[in-house]
Amino acid sequence: MRNFDFQNPTRILFGSGQIANIASEIPSDARVLLVAGGGSIRTNGVYDQVKAALQGRTVHEFWGVLPNPDIAVLLPALELIRAESLDFILAVGGGSVIDGAKLLAVAARSAAEPWAILSKGVRVSDALPIGVVLTLPAAGSESNNAAAISNRETRQKLVFVTPLCFPRFAVLDPEATFSLPPRQVSNGITDAFIHVLEQYLTFPAGGILSDRLAEALLITLKEQGPRALREPSNYEVKANLMWAASLALNGLIGQGVPQDWTTHHIGHELTALFGIDHARTLAIVLPALLEARRQQKAAKIVQFGARVFGIADASDAEAIDATIAQTAAFFESLGVPTRLSAYGIGEEAIPQIVAKLKANRRLRMGERLDITPDAAGKILALAL
Amino acid sequence: MRNFDFQNPTRILFGSGQIANIASEIPSDARVLLVAGGGSIRTNGVYDQVKAALQGRTVHEFWGVLPNPDIAVLLPALELIRAESLDFILAVGGGSVIDGAKLLAVAARSAAEPWAILSKGVRVSDALPIGVVLTLPAAGSESNNAAAISNRETRQKLVFVTPLCFPRFAVLDPEATFSLPPRQVSNGITDAFIHVLEQYLTFPAGGILSDRLAEALLITLKEQGPRALREPSNYEVKANLMWAASLALNGLIGQGVPQDWTTHHIGHELTALFGIDHARTLAIVLPALLEARRQQKAAKIVQFGARVFGIADASDAEAIDATIAQTAAFFESLGVPTRLSAYGIGEEAIPQIVAKLKANRRLRMGERLDITPDAAGKILALAL
Repeated sequence: MRNFDFQNPTRILFGSGQIANIASEIPSDARVLLVAGGGSIRTNGVYDQVKAALQGRTVHEFWGVLPNPDIAVLLPALELIRAESLDFILAVGGGSVIDGAKLLAVAARSAAEPWAILSKGVRVSDALPIGVVLTLPAAGSESNNAAAISNRETRQKLVFVTPLCFPRFAVLDPEATFSLPPRQVSNGITDAFIHVLEQYLTFPAGGILSDRLAEALLITLKEQGPRALREPSNYEVKANLMWAASLALNGLIGQGVPQDWTTHHIGHELTALFGIDHARTLAIVLPALLEARRQQKAAKIVQFGARVFGIADASDAEAIDATIAQTAAFFESLGVPTRLSAYGIGEEAIPQIVAKLKANRRLRMGERLDITPDAAGKILALAL
Repeated sequence: MRNFDFQNPTRILFGSGQIANIASEIPSDARVLLVAGGGSIRTNGVYDQVKAALQGRTVHEFWGVLPNPDIAVLLPALELIRAESLDFILAVGGGSVIDGAKLLAVAARSAAEPWAILSKGVRVSDALPIGVVLTLPAAGSESNNAAAISNRETRQKLVFVTPLCFPRFAVLDPEATFSLPPRQVSNGITDAFIHVLEQYLTFPAGGILSDRLAEALLITLKEQGPRALREPSNYEVKANLMWAASLALNGLIGQGVPQDWTTHHIGHELTALFGIDHARTLAIVLPALLEARRQQKAAKIVQFGARVFGIADASDAEAIDATIAQTAAFFESLGVPTRLSAYGIGEEAIPQIVAKLKANRRLRMGERLDITPDAAGKILALAL
């Protein structure tokens, strides 16, 4: 078990009716920027609840932070923050809205050019406080320290990490997820499942408890995910999925163990180049990654298969085959394809993706940092 | 799944060598009270590491905070804090030292009589900051908001809870636990295991994920506990136990689910009256509680038996019998007795315990608040 330094200060307000309680979490004299997406919160009642809770406060609104939030889309919000001296950011939406809010929070307190915070790793030392009302369980951004931002112009999707962007609070009301379209539910389950796997499917390193916690999340997602598609208004199912997606990437299960994140690195390029939904890129890459790294990851793949899928009485090779097959079948059962061909992408695209990975000189992939861009190309060839 | 409001701000510094890092967690101009127990930290090297890390700071020391810390023992430390204007408390020890430090932290910033914070529930609104260097994994106090304090004069052991007493940081160095005597290791495993069960063995309430997380901890404690006794210097084993004991009572697994704590309420009286080690009182009460409440807790006992002990192919009644028997056998295998008779206590003691419970008028026991002091007497009769 490796040394670690873990702190997660986000306050979680979980359950039906909790949106009203944001009133006591945001200072009464705060000048609030409400950041939102495409408008679904207007139809599911969340917006009305938020506005009611914020009554009496100065609130400006910034709409249109869509999936894979684009830096160019966010810049006008930064101008609004500065022009109106706003001092609290409330993200109402899913991971993209929250990630956009995080960039705004640090950019508002930095003299740096905003994109440089991602592209050049410019250090930030201050941030506006952030609160979250979550509507889409998937990314875990509501209680972590990271954000992914895209740049349509340069065709990049990059991540920045700083403890400054832990939200002060996050409201998780499962009822806010009842009206999600099935595609977003499937994507969310897939995203959360693979967040766990990126912290789990490496090599044994004595993180016995972290493994068990990861498996608790995987089993819950595997069992409740399909139910959520069949029973979109089942509170219990949606509540457990929402909490699982949050714990999948709040830092807890990754403590003391190696992590991979290759699937995310390659997946980000698929989103940047071809606009494929984030979770769907992961479902393409992950099974191929496991196939390509089946020797290096053997012990953990076998453990995953045994404890999550109940695979027993098989040789290691058979167990690994079955585990990879069942993982892919799980995503497919949710309606999430696991092949590039499902998006009309063929092998001619691979050199382009490899070139993008090579252009990112700071990038090291894999739990042993030994996956090169060319090796990523071979992984993609297994996902055609 | 019930609504919840969860925040745990404690920073965990985990692993070998982390004690040195307390230097960056305590303000350089802090006036520190180092609180310690009976002296074991002098022989295992922890004290020297702490002193080295604190070099250059004003540090006063207060020793002698022993198991079930007595309010009368703590009062001189409060005088020292006031006389020397100390403003940071560093607890170096196990749950008793940490709990004592928590009382000092709130009492130092309150005009109330210290015992009244426990006996009368006097509200506190401020506290000195607390840091922890943990030497005994068991209580979970290093990253929670509660403390148990005893009063030898009134023969009481009471608990107070306030977010003000979350430690700012806690160092968990597994090497600091290598030299623990076997009795303390056994007690710690038992304590942590029963902390999980108090939050788990109630009735199904839709906390599907919380159950899985609880089971992850139980399986880890069950598997690694006996190994820790056989291999006291096995870093991996001790590390996983240390992290499990912390997560067992840091708030996480209790979110969204009913909780019991009857075993602790009755156990505290056994400690107050007869001086039995805290964990050992729990091991006496818990199996008897499960027997007495086998109908009310049936579904969860069966789930516990199946998922933690692998009990299968049995009727519910058989599964409950087997689960209770295996739970008691687990404690006994650690050298922890599960009967009052092991301490020479017979049925004549029960009325005395029931009277103590009746005297605590604020007390309501059980996940449905339906366990009366007389019912507790019947539970104890099953533990003779």
